[in-house]
This record gives sequence, C-alpha cells and structure tokens, in this order.
Amino acid sequence: MHADLSSLAFLLGTWRGKGKGDYPSTDPFTFAEEMSFSHAGKPHLVYVQRSWNPESGQAMHSEMGFWRPRGPGHVEIALAYPIGVVDVEEGTVIGQTIDVATTGVAGSSTAKEVRKLERTMTVEGDVLRYELRMSAIGEPLVYHADAELRRVE
Amino acid sequence: MHADLSSLAFLLGTWRGKGKGDYPSTDPFTFAEEMSFSHAGKPHLVYVQRSWNPESGQAMHSEMGFWRPRGPGHVEIALAYPIGVVDVEEGTVIGQTIDVATTGVAGSSTAKEVRKLERTMTVEGDVLRYELRMSAIGEPLVYHADAELRRVE
Repeated sequence: MHADLSSLAFLLGTWRGKGKGDYPSTDPFTFAEEMSFSHAGKPHLVYVQRSWNPESGQAMHSEMGFWRPRGPGHVEIALAYPIGVVDVEEGTVIGQTIDVATTGVAGSSTAKEVRKLERTMTVEGDVLRYELRMSAIGEPLVYHADAELRRVE
Repeated sequence: MHADLSSLAFLLGTWRGKGKGDYPSTDPFTFAEEMSFSHAGKPHLVYVQRSWNPESGQAMHSEMGFWRPRGPGHVEIALAYPIGVVDVEEGTVIGQTIDVATTGVAGSSTAKEVRKLERTMTVEGDVLRYELRMSAIGEPLVYHADAELRRVE
C-alpha cells in the first residue's frame, strides 16, 4: 500500500448493508448497498458502489471514483454518476470520520441539475455508517440518504 | 439489457491490449491496458479502465465511469480520474465509431488543470482502437495516447 493511503486504510475492503432515503421529489425508499475500497499501489483508493432494491434485487443507484488523501487530514474524491453527472468532493479525515462536500460539479446537456452533495462517513470496527445530503433539481441542501454497512471482506 | 443500450452494445465485454502515448510535458511512453464495459439492466454502461507498465506491471493510468446513450446517435460519458479530476464528455455514435469531447470538467483544489479531452473510438470485430487528445497544464489540445485492444471476454 502506498504510504499516502495510511489515513484512509480503515476504508479498505467490501462493505454491505441496508439504507434508507428520501427527497422532496420522491417517496421515502429503502435499499441494499455494497461499497468496495481497494488500491493498486498508487496513492488513491478505487471506490465502487452500487445499491439495489432489497425485495426485487433490481439495480438502483451506483457511483464510482477515486479517493485521495492530500496532506494531513484532507481528502479529495472524484466521482462519476450514471445520470450524466460528475463531482469533486473535498473535506476532512479526522480519525475514522470523513466529512466532505462538493467543490466542483459538471453535468451533461440532458442531465438533471445536481448542485451540491455533502457526506459524513464514520467507521467503527467493522461498521461503516454514512449520511448523504444533496441540493439538486432546485431543492436546497437537505437529507437524501443514510446507511449502515458491515465489512464482509 | 436495457433497450436504450442497443447503440452501444458493441462495446460490451473486456478488452485488453497495448498502447502508446506522448505529451509536451512527458517523454513518450507505452502501456498495457484493460477496459471493461458491463451493464446491470439500467440504461447505461459501467466502464472500468486501467493501464500498467508492460515491463514492470506497475499501475499507470486508470479511469472509471458511465456511458449513456441519449437519443439517436448521441452519447454522454461521466468519468472520474484518480488525479482529483472529473469530466463529462458528449458526442456521436455512428455505427461502431464514437467521437466525444469534454463538455464539463471539474478539478480539486490540488489537481493539475485539465481543460479538455477528445476521444475517437472504433470497434471492428473484436478489435477496439482509440485515440485520445488532451488540453491540460496550459497545453493546447494535442495527441496524448492511442491503443489497440482485443476483446478477451
């Protein structure tokens, strides 16, 4: 493992669990989710996430990208979404808690507007919990989803 | 497979091969590369790419994201890079040739400036060829890399 990754090593592995979400434009929903963080010797983590309907198994959200520590306590995340949107999020790593928010976003010509995302993620032992807040389609920055995952690999 | 994906179905699978690159800021280089395009029943392809030094096996570039057809002959690509950069590329699908260029880009506070990418990708049978042009770190849009890959799965 690249030495720069030590502050994020607590994320390494595959995490699986359940979450719930809501947004002004949708009904409340639940999901099953898997996240994996891996590395290939470079100073960044490879992040792959997908969620699915816990009853039907049908694919729901997915996102992928790269997490890189940049100096003590600072992390930068570059993420792609299947809806024609990408964003860069930046923030702090304090112990095993990460707080990041969008610092740059771009969308394709047919994409719905996504203005800002904010995430808080905490790992305690083999449990990863996060909350996601979002400003999109004209809505202010409000709660969008949270989940509790367990390390399975 | 989602019906919307028919125009990009020729990309599905795993592709492996070799390429070369150059840029005003670097010496010419060669690389081994693997790309995979898959789907999970949704109207987008999941794209994962990595390249490595063909002699040492050491990881080089990687990128990941989502490709989605949007109407006849139009494709939108959302991509994340490990260097704190993300971009959205849009363009045409004509037969088995894709021409896209950056329409939106964002970079983290410590990222090198990437202004624009342009890709041409063509599949003939089980051979995928692409050329990538890039404007970054103050350079104009010039050749950056090309590769020839074969479908292995």
